[in-house]
Amino acid sequence: MEESEAQISHLALDIGGSLIKLVYFSRNSDNSSSKNSVPVSNGNEGRPVLEGKLHFAKFETAKIHDCIDFIQSKQLCLTGCQHHGSSADEKCIIKATGGGAYKFTDLFKEKLGICLGKEDEMDCLVAGANFLLKSVHDEAFTYMDGQKEFAQIDHDDLYPYLLVNIGSGVSMIKVDGPGKFERVSGTNVGGGTFWGLGRLLTKCKSFDELLELSQQGNNRVIDMLVGDIYGGTDYKKIGLTSTTIASSFGKAISDNKELEDYKPEDISRSLLRMISNNIGQISYLNALRFGLKRIFFAGFFIRGHAYTMDTIAVAVHFWSKGEAKAMFLRHEGFLGALGAFMSYEKHGFDNLMVHQLLQQSPTDPSDGGDKTHGPANSELNDNPSINCSVYLS
Amino acid sequence: MEESEAQISHLALDIGGSLIKLVYFSRNSDNSSSKNSVPVSNGNEGRPVLEGKLHFAKFETAKIHDCIDFIQSKQLCLTGCQHHGSSADEKCIIKATGGGAYKFTDLFKEKLGICLGKEDEMDCLVAGANFLLKSVHDEAFTYMDGQKEFAQIDHDDLYPYLLVNIGSGVSMIKVDGPGKFERVSGTNVGGGTFWGLGRLLTKCKSFDELLELSQQGNNRVIDMLVGDIYGGTDYKKIGLTSTTIASSFGKAISDNKELEDYKPEDISRSLLRMISNNIGQISYLNALRFGLKRIFFAGFFIRGHAYTMDTIAVAVHFWSKGEAKAMFLRHEGFLGALGAFMSYEKHGFDNLMVHQLLQQSPTDPSDGGDKTHGPANSELNDNPSINCSVYLS
Repeated sequence: MEESEAQISHLALDIGGSLIKLVYFSRNSDNSSSKNSVPVSNGNEGRPVLEGKLHFAKFETAKIHDCIDFIQSKQLCLTGCQHHGSSADEKCIIKATGGGAYKFTDLFKEKLGICLGKEDEMDCLVAGANFLLKSVHDEAFTYMDGQKEFAQIDHDDLYPYLLVNIGSGVSMIKVDGPGKFERVSGTNVGGGTFWGLGRLLTKCKSFDELLELSQQGNNRVIDMLVGDIYGGTDYKKIGLTSTTIASSFGKAISDNKELEDYKPEDISRSLLRMISNNIGQISYLNALRFGLKRIFFAGFFIRGHAYTMDTIAVAVHFWSKGEAKAMFLRHEGFLGALGAFMSYEKHGFDNLMVHQLLQQSPTDPSDGGDKTHGPANSELNDNPSINCSVYLS
Repeated sequence: MEESEAQISHLALDIGGSLIKLVYFSRNSDNSSSKNSVPVSNGNEGRPVLEGKLHFAKFETAKIHDCIDFIQSKQLCLTGCQHHGSSADEKCIIKATGGGAYKFTDLFKEKLGICLGKEDEMDCLVAGANFLLKSVHDEAFTYMDGQKEFAQIDHDDLYPYLLVNIGSGVSMIKVDGPGKFERVSGTNVGGGTFWGLGRLLTKCKSFDELLELSQQGNNRVIDMLVGDIYGGTDYKKIGLTSTTIASSFGKAISDNKELEDYKPEDISRSLLRMISNNIGQISYLNALRFGLKRIFFAGFFIRGHAYTMDTIAVAVHFWSKGEAKAMFLRHEGFLGALGAFMSYEKHGFDNLMVHQLLQQSPTDPSDGGDKTHGPANSELNDNPSINCSVYLS
């Protein structure tokens, strides 16, 4: 089905420091007028249901005009009001979260004539996480030693958990129930640090290029290991092996080498390891404070990257002595945008109520699923869309 | 008094990944034969006492030959055996700790004919800290908003505390009593990371130059602040002001600037703040685990640098909501070396037993006290020597 034939509705935005994330729903054209019965017993029996897809896209915040063009080309700017029976005078409201919802209010009004309906960032992250964990099949997984394993989430035993969202910066949120949460910590060493420092240290032109480079790198060229200090031996008494990193980038102090003498691959890997490990450690220490055994890591820093996930998982495993578990989410980058999307219902904005979404045919994230269309320069990852049904109220 | 006139004894070494720290005792020549009575009631009344000074020096580990020359020029290599009545054939043992005590065993044997008597690194750090906190007047201080305040340490209420030693890497040790401790955590983001990354990002030729630069820098040029994301406003709901750093180095992602376009001053400051804040946060989270209210920060990363101490103190204050307190030590860099020095007594190596040391005239660390003599290129800081008395056994 061509997307242009689909009826698009419910755009929601998450405008962060580095990236803008979009979520929108497209109704399948072939059943746009059909009203199937609801197959599950959840109190919605008999209500009309629409089949369709949730789509995901992202743009760099620095290239916000690409995002605006994309929204205009798809007429997504009409989605906030088209079902509302609004006249041209009436306000067209698009749900948005993240700091950019405040920063770019005037720009969206001017360029697209839409109002950004601001939703709190933490509210949205939690709503997005809860939705994914409860409603999307095979969403959460563990990753260790190159092995990915989907986690069976018992819906009755989901809470409490620690949600770690790694965007430009990092937020750590203790989630106790739907809408019940507290931001307990965070760190300013996050994805923006990896990309910012990485840009300065290498000639990489994009985050993904930097991430790609790290796969060929060897962090031991730059990191000072315990063995480097102890002359090749372990420091057994406190459980540090000779290959434990004593000091990230510590080898760069004693060399006569300049920046140009190091391979960008090695720099990228060392940086990625330093930051991933640090986030894993701080996350664990916060999980420990509240006795949380499960930590879900999300945010666009991760990008399903094996080494990142492995480092985070190993850090949590190491520091917790196996007591706590790191888990990852397939739609890791879109929690905030999904949460903003969910908020349409909360405010009863529309006669198309997104009451519950059921994934019907999960696609393997590695094959990308249904590709989001967008301009070639928007550096979209292959973000799997979610097949779903929505109920008409 | 010329140091050459003094009788030097008891050299001890701490050979880390970046720096070698030396401690040695010189007896004042004018009282070398006097045997004063002991002025305090501590069980040592009537025992002979010597007046003298503890001296401190440091060298870069990469320039270990400078250190060896220094030891040779001062004949410090004889101090482990001169009171031992050893013949030339007998082993001359110098106490040493840190990984380099293992790595450079053969080098010291070959160049100086001495054996390094290896002492455990954590044992030494704790022994050094306990000695400084108990026996040296005005050793510990708090630092906040540019105000230094000496802490009155109640000797009966010293334990437990968290000791955070920031060398190339960072060790966090819960200290429960003399010789009673556990290394509970650490991080590989430490002084080696600051200097290693700093060297790669700036043209600085020394750690001190990099530190000096940071004083003129402005981290907001490179760090992404909450206000940068939120369009100048706070994110009040979770207590983040517009000037809170959301992402260290995060501004470097969206600029078209290259490394050369940034001032080394700004890079240095951002780096120093990132690392100091991170260490402060992880330290606090570990203090919290064990209900420790006092955290002593030591190690040669700090160097009495105002911005470093301020950042660490603010981090501890912020994350603990004022519950925990960061404290610093005047002889911050020499805990391990002092601990190794103390270990002579433990092993009964010598007839000059270092039973207790009393500081008599503390010097202001800002004026450097009695400067350690050393080769011009050894980049010695002004490490205040400690006037002290030792008891003859």
